[in-house]
Amino acid sequence: MTTVLRIDASTRLQNSLSRELADTFERCLAEAVPDLKILRRDLGQTPPFIICEAWVAAAFAPEDARTADQRKLLALSDTLIEEVAAADFILLSTPMYNYGMPAGLKAWVDQVVRIGKTFTFDLARGDRPLEPILSGKTLVLTTACGEFGFEAGEPNAAHNHLAPHVRTIGKYLGVEGMHHIAIEYQEFRDQRHADSVSSAHRQARELVERLTVACTSA
Amino acid sequence: MTTVLRIDASTRLQNSLSRELADTFERCLAEAVPDLKILRRDLGQTPPFIICEAWVAAAFAPEDARTADQRKLLALSDTLIEEVAAADFILLSTPMYNYGMPAGLKAWVDQVVRIGKTFTFDLARGDRPLEPILSGKTLVLTTACGEFGFEAGEPNAAHNHLAPHVRTIGKYLGVEGMHHIAIEYQEFRDQRHADSVSSAHRQARELVERLTVACTSA
Repeated sequence: MTTVLRIDASTRLQNSLSRELADTFERCLAEAVPDLKILRRDLGQTPPFIICEAWVAAAFAPEDARTADQRKLLALSDTLIEEVAAADFILLSTPMYNYGMPAGLKAWVDQVVRIGKTFTFDLARGDRPLEPILSGKTLVLTTACGEFGFEAGEPNAAHNHLAPHVRTIGKYLGVEGMHHIAIEYQEFRDQRHADSVSSAHRQARELVERLTVACTSA
Repeated sequence: MTTVLRIDASTRLQNSLSRELADTFERCLAEAVPDLKILRRDLGQTPPFIICEAWVAAAFAPEDARTADQRKLLALSDTLIEEVAAADFILLSTPMYNYGMPAGLKAWVDQVVRIGKTFTFDLARGDRPLEPILSGKTLVLTTACGEFGFEAGEPNAAHNHLAPHVRTIGKYLGVEGMHHIAIEYQEFRDQRHADSVSSAHRQARELVERLTVACTSA
């Protein structure tokens, strides 16, 4: 069985371009992979709480030394991490808000990247003391942004703090392959935008075709 | 009179390296500039709420068409923007959490970058339709991170999604000069870290000296 963790970060339920693009990927994947299990986490509608000082203290406390209050404070994080751990595919849809992740998505990241749960830390490893615990996951990222030209070498590359950040974080969630499909030009509402939407949905369908061999043999 | 908006994003009140570094800058500036007014916004202790679909609808509604509920939903954003607008200097202290802004800082960014308040949008400007409304501000950013080598050309440059993101956002808050002082190696707790802390506090003191002429003539 193949498990997909579908995560949506747009505050919009209707007319969210990033959600619609993930819908296309999900629909094609469900057609191609018969026994697909889908977990859902809607960060746009229900963002996780923003971690606080007590949360950090609880996360760094040894597991057997945690108080009942500390365990309660980490309960949501435990659940979110279980969802990531269970997933073969993470299908993450998100708009670019102010050139980066929506705050709700960052709140999720700060809950799931956790010592002893998703990464280990050991100074004996030298200058690279962090290592991920999870492995073998594929991340499919669908994004929508108002402007354009955020890829390397393009005019807004220096202002792209979304996909590169997701790529960095993915490593600590066990992601070993990442595919990014982007819709651009949203605020221009012109032909370039219409073309970008069609192209992105076509790329989503083609990506399912390319990934199907790996899916069905899993 | 010179007004400083001091913003702190660490969840820690005590033993926060980024707060302590901002303390050094603030103390030296207060000594150098007699009639300094300081506004304070603690995002670590009291993060703003994460914007939702109704907030976005309210922000994009014409001002004279907003309902009482919409005006209420935007009240915090109005206050946060007034604080930015009043500031000559923005002194922002933040740790790097998972290679980027803490979620509480991103929640603040999503509240303060707002159409008609901090930027205007006009397609008549062509491919660069956004322009900031505010101007003339200086941003001093103090950061602390566990790892090291996040500057351009260094080994972790591709994983630095904090200072470059703050730089991008600063433009839409009227920032015309930005100074970044970073503490590194926090998780190594070695001599390199101790040196980084001393160097950063020295840089903070020197920066006040360099900025004082501008301050006192303001």
